[in-house]
Amino acid sequence: MDENYLLNTSLSQRLFHECAKNLPIIDYHNHLERKDLTGEKRYRNIAELWLLSDPYKHRAMRICGVSEDYITGGAGDKEKFRAWMDILPRLVGNPLYEWSILEMKRVFEIDLKPGITDPEWLWEQTNRKLSKPEYSAQRILQIFNVEYAAPCASIADDITAFEGTGSIAPSLRGDTMADLNAETIEQLEGIVQTPIFSLHDYCQAIRVRLNDFHRVGCRFSDHALDDGFEYIPDDGRNEQRFITWKQGASLNCDEKKRLSSEILRFLAGEYAKYGWTMQLHIGAQRYTSTRLRKLAGPAGGFAGIGNCCDIRSLTQMLDEFEQGVNGMPKVILFTLNPADNAAMSVLSGSYSGDGVEGNVQQGPAWWWCDHLYGMREVLETISSFGVLSTFVGMTTDSRSILSFVRHEYFRRVLCGWLGGKAANGEITASYEALRKLVEDICYYNAKKRITE
Amino acid sequence: MDENYLLNTSLSQRLFHECAKNLPIIDYHNHLERKDLTGEKRYRNIAELWLLSDPYKHRAMRICGVSEDYITGGAGDKEKFRAWMDILPRLVGNPLYEWSILEMKRVFEIDLKPGITDPEWLWEQTNRKLSKPEYSAQRILQIFNVEYAAPCASIADDITAFEGTGSIAPSLRGDTMADLNAETIEQLEGIVQTPIFSLHDYCQAIRVRLNDFHRVGCRFSDHALDDGFEYIPDDGRNEQRFITWKQGASLNCDEKKRLSSEILRFLAGEYAKYGWTMQLHIGAQRYTSTRLRKLAGPAGGFAGIGNCCDIRSLTQMLDEFEQGVNGMPKVILFTLNPADNAAMSVLSGSYSGDGVEGNVQQGPAWWWCDHLYGMREVLETISSFGVLSTFVGMTTDSRSILSFVRHEYFRRVLCGWLGGKAANGEITASYEALRKLVEDICYYNAKKRITE
Amino acid sequence: MDENYLLNTSLSQRLFHECAKNLPIIDYHNHLERKDLTGEKRYRNIAELWLLSDPYKHRAMRICGVSEDYITGGAGDKEKFRAWMDILPRLVGNPLYEWSILEMKRVFEIDLKPGITDPEWLWEQTNRKLSKPEYSAQRILQIFNVEYAAPCASIADDITAFEGTGSIAPSLRGDTMADLNAETIEQLEGIVQTPIFSLHDYCQAIRVRLNDFHRVGCRFSDHALDDGFEYIPDDGRNEQRFITWKQGASLNCDEKKRLSSEILRFLAGEYAKYGWTMQLHIGAQRYTSTRLRKLAGPAGGFAGIGNCCDIRSLTQMLDEFEQGVNGMPKVILFTLNPADNAAMSVLSGSYSGDGVEGNVQQGPAWWWCDHLYGMREVLETISSFGVLSTFVGMTTDSRSILSFVRHEYFRRVLCGWLGGKAANGEITASYEALRKLVEDICYYNAKKRITE
Repeated sequence: MDENYLLNTSLSQRLFHECAKNLPIIDYHNHLERKDLTGEKRYRNIAELWLLSDPYKHRAMRICGVSEDYITGGAGDKEKFRAWMDILPRLVGNPLYEWSILEMKRVFEIDLKPGITDPEWLWEQTNRKLSKPEYSAQRILQIFNVEYAAPCASIADDITAFEGTGSIAPSLRGDTMADLNAETIEQLEGIVQTPIFSLHDYCQAIRVRLNDFHRVGCRFSDHALDDGFEYIPDDGRNEQRFITWKQGASLNCDEKKRLSSEILRFLAGEYAKYGWTMQLHIGAQRYTSTRLRKLAGPAGGFAGIGNCCDIRSLTQMLDEFEQGVNGMPKVILFTLNPADNAAMSVLSGSYSGDGVEGNVQQGPAWWWCDHLYGMREVLETISSFGVLSTFVGMTTDSRSILSFVRHEYFRRVLCGWLGGKAANGEITASYEALRKLVEDICYYNAKKRITE
Repeated sequence: MDENYLLNTSLSQRLFHECAKNLPIIDYHNHLERKDLTGEKRYRNIAELWLLSDPYKHRAMRICGVSEDYITGGAGDKEKFRAWMDILPRLVGNPLYEWSILEMKRVFEIDLKPGITDPEWLWEQTNRKLSKPEYSAQRILQIFNVEYAAPCASIADDITAFEGTGSIAPSLRGDTMADLNAETIEQLEGIVQTPIFSLHDYCQAIRVRLNDFHRVGCRFSDHALDDGFEYIPDDGRNEQRFITWKQGASLNCDEKKRLSSEILRFLAGEYAKYGWTMQLHIGAQRYTSTRLRKLAGPAGGFAGIGNCCDIRSLTQMLDEFEQGVNGMPKVILFTLNPADNAAMSVLSGSYSGDGVEGNVQQGPAWWWCDHLYGMREVLETISSFGVLSTFVGMTTDSRSILSFVRHEYFRRVLCGWLGGKAANGEITASYEALRKLVEDICYYNAKKRITE
Repeated sequence: MDENYLLNTSLSQRLFHECAKNLPIIDYHNHLERKDLTGEKRYRNIAELWLLSDPYKHRAMRICGVSEDYITGGAGDKEKFRAWMDILPRLVGNPLYEWSILEMKRVFEIDLKPGITDPEWLWEQTNRKLSKPEYSAQRILQIFNVEYAAPCASIADDITAFEGTGSIAPSLRGDTMADLNAETIEQLEGIVQTPIFSLHDYCQAIRVRLNDFHRVGCRFSDHALDDGFEYIPDDGRNEQRFITWKQGASLNCDEKKRLSSEILRFLAGEYAKYGWTMQLHIGAQRYTSTRLRKLAGPAGGFAGIGNCCDIRSLTQMLDEFEQGVNGMPKVILFTLNPADNAAMSVLSGSYSGDGVEGNVQQGPAWWWCDHLYGMREVLETISSFGVLSTFVGMTTDSRSILSFVRHEYFRRVLCGWLGGKAANGEITASYEALRKLVEDICYYNAKKRITE
């Protein structure tokens, strides 16, 4: 892997080195710890930084048959590091192979050679660097030229740490709002100092918090529409449903869906008022192995890809968002099932907004789809079924701070793909036209979302 | 874009320039205005010809955030033209970019350079040509070497204009028949001069009209099986259902599906008798934005891709067609969801007909799938899961007369794809073998459907 | 087609010729006749060997409009051979074109040129060879260097012929067990010499037979989860359900699914105990044309690709397997609908096993997907969503003994694909790393499954 990794034409190389490479990173949705980003987080060793909070790597280790002890279990940091180094050479073809090399190169300036690099040497080299004060989370953000990063925060989370940072803002994780989480509601009551008896009260409390979030720079929210999601239009009885539930009654599955749909409608309108972008993460199947759920927690990297999205439910929901008083928010559709790619990207032409490019649009390849193959498929569908120049570009959605290398990876994939297309005569070979395209996708389109 | 656009091997170039390019066009299904094709239609300016009746372009403008005023709204022709020229450079990667260039080149011999060509100049140049008598619809058909074009007509439409044209024949749009449209039935009663009380009467009236359609050259029918389509076998009560409905009772959703299924069975048998080809357009989600439906009408280009086809329903329907007295008609399956491609193309091996090549077969990439990426995917699935040499080839399904350039586009994609495969050693590189393949797909397979 | 067919880089060529080509074949699941493999089967002519038992070829003939008489009907062997030779040149793009060439080359050392080779000459040449004693099934297995082949056998089949062969072992076809086939149960009672009244008895009888199967070398079982499959957790009433059914009551659809689910749970546990691999063949739509079912039998090659797999059902089933007393067996997921590829391959990270590489994994491209395009798609998804080095590799699943050429085809596809990726800089170009990968996928990973 050299400086022209994934860049097989001279045009690809120019586009990457002259246009994409030096643009700052806007990572509009991730799962990093906000205290790491805003504090002076240091790492005790390379295992902590590289492995312990990266479920992608845990997953690859499991596939290779590594015992859970050495993944998320009781083994020591160094043992886990050795187990990872053992399986790394077996990952040829999986993006983790190249990501790992990029991670070592960008952060430690070390040329990792899977299967060749001595683990003992790597352990010492990296830990020596990590022991120096400058190897903090802040330093890593600088290395990656991160201009804006948005770790998730729930509506009742303490977001005071975000104040005044400018570059670190919350991305509002909306599921505890839409799923009627009792604990969240209790916390909200405490924060806004008003009891919540009704759906109306609940919405008022949320409004207060949305204003707080907006004030500290939040411009993106995110909702998981997992496999099984269904949208149900209003039947006029949701207020009554909420009150009954708040008084202690339990709701059946249909009633829960109705209330969630109601809250999503409300939130979409609020997001539209603030000019926020609403991210919909569609189609995860989070219930797979009960065993791993117990061992590794719900976000342990063993989720599957769910059934294809129910387009009827999704389009009805988007239509009702658009029909709402405040109109349509900007929406980004992330699908975990690549069989949905075309259906997602074509919706860009179904819900437009005057003066807004890509009002509803497919997002970048998400989660398990976030690799060369998945990214290219998404580039193909967005450009063929939508308009590529409106694409808001990459975000990591990651729990690992080293994942910022995936922006570089994305930019290489994009520039490589465009240069290849141009060389084949499939798209214009005009450097100026492609330069603008690359810069918009890598930076300016996302930038608009946080500044407008 | 030069003469070898999409033709990157010398074999591709030979196949296109020596075999495909000069074959006449058979466009067996489109939505052109038959009065335009059979009359002496002229165009008041380039906006009317190029933009106003092309929902693909409207859609791209919406994605780019253009106000609906400048798309289908009250703005003047020239303003709309300007709005289109403004966004055209942003469409890199979308087929409209290249289609637009081809449209200007073939019809006006103008080299359009998006973002560079002066809109004012283009407006004047094209309008000057359009003001000349020879720039009629007839002339455009000649430019494109159209041998046979089949605009849709419904069963009760006046088709006298098609008589004696030979080259322009209706493609029977079947949805108003299968969906039990009261207005259509009333018109039918007028045409056949017999009241329709029963399903039997209805079928008799349709029979009369099918004969009329056949007489003026109709050889293709078309039915939309939108997202939500379900086929239900006969329960022996459809005659009673029809009579009840005709007397004013309303039908529930299940009853409607039963009657539609009944009528589809009947029609399939009739089509088989006449040797027609029955086109099934599967999987559109036409209900997306209520706002755009109001502004731009139901065919305004904002439809989405629906859920994957229910294969159980489809295969049961095809099986019952085959079990019918008249046997199986030739069937072309168009799917809007590319995730259905393999399932569609494999059915070519499930319903065969003695002496008929590709009795049931997947059609060309349809509607939003009709681009380089979508076409290649369909070529891959038809050849891998079916037999490419039986493929009936391209039709535009378009509302814009300039869309005939998409036959050239299709032929380039085909020849480029075959030449590339041959160069990689994946298929035979025999020029004679590929010449026959190309000629059959581009012309002779469709020709057989209108002459046999 | 020369020795470097599908091998377009020098690295691809080295990987194939130096690593893959000479490895023995392990065909862990097929539908060959065990009496052919274990006896001294001879072939009366090339039609019997090449065509009569190959539903893939029958299917292609149907698509080309050949009358069923000349496919599975009353026409003579030579007429069928002529009909096949007639359509072969029309199959450009379909894998049968290249498979047929490979079949003639490897077994008869004849360079078949579709459309050019004289059928009469070929008929004579091949029949002359087949008339010699050495052209037996045994000889063909030697030509292909088959080390282990596993034809299907049902639980009550006579498997004594497998004893002591070592290289030919049954692959347990589990559907008659899971579907509660009365005839199978009766046979089981005979074999184990105990009446079966209860589910408990049934399981005991199966246990006896599993031991027999294991003893003759069986290490793989296989279950069809056709379109419509649904898994239902235990409700504690399956024993009662079984008893009622055994006493002559009929079961409704839901009850059948419950009992099948129960038996699958039981079997998965047994397979886990024995260390067997459980193959799940997911998503066939076997009910298409009633006409062809009558003419050609249920396995006549006219099956379709069913709806996408219900991931909720599948993941719940796998989870309950894992929760079982004996834990998770090794599982290979075969999907007929390529739209399921990503969802299948990602499950490799959801159900892991300590010390087992690729405990649950996607299998090779199956049935109608088993061609260049389908194989590459599966390689992409396994490597991107899983870990390629754990891939258990090719099996033919074929009814034709000549299909062993598809192992060569698979190996060429694999080496061509890896070499291409390496040349593009997408994966490592280390010969040593790729050599190991190729050898594991082509041989050692499957070998482990039969030896461990």
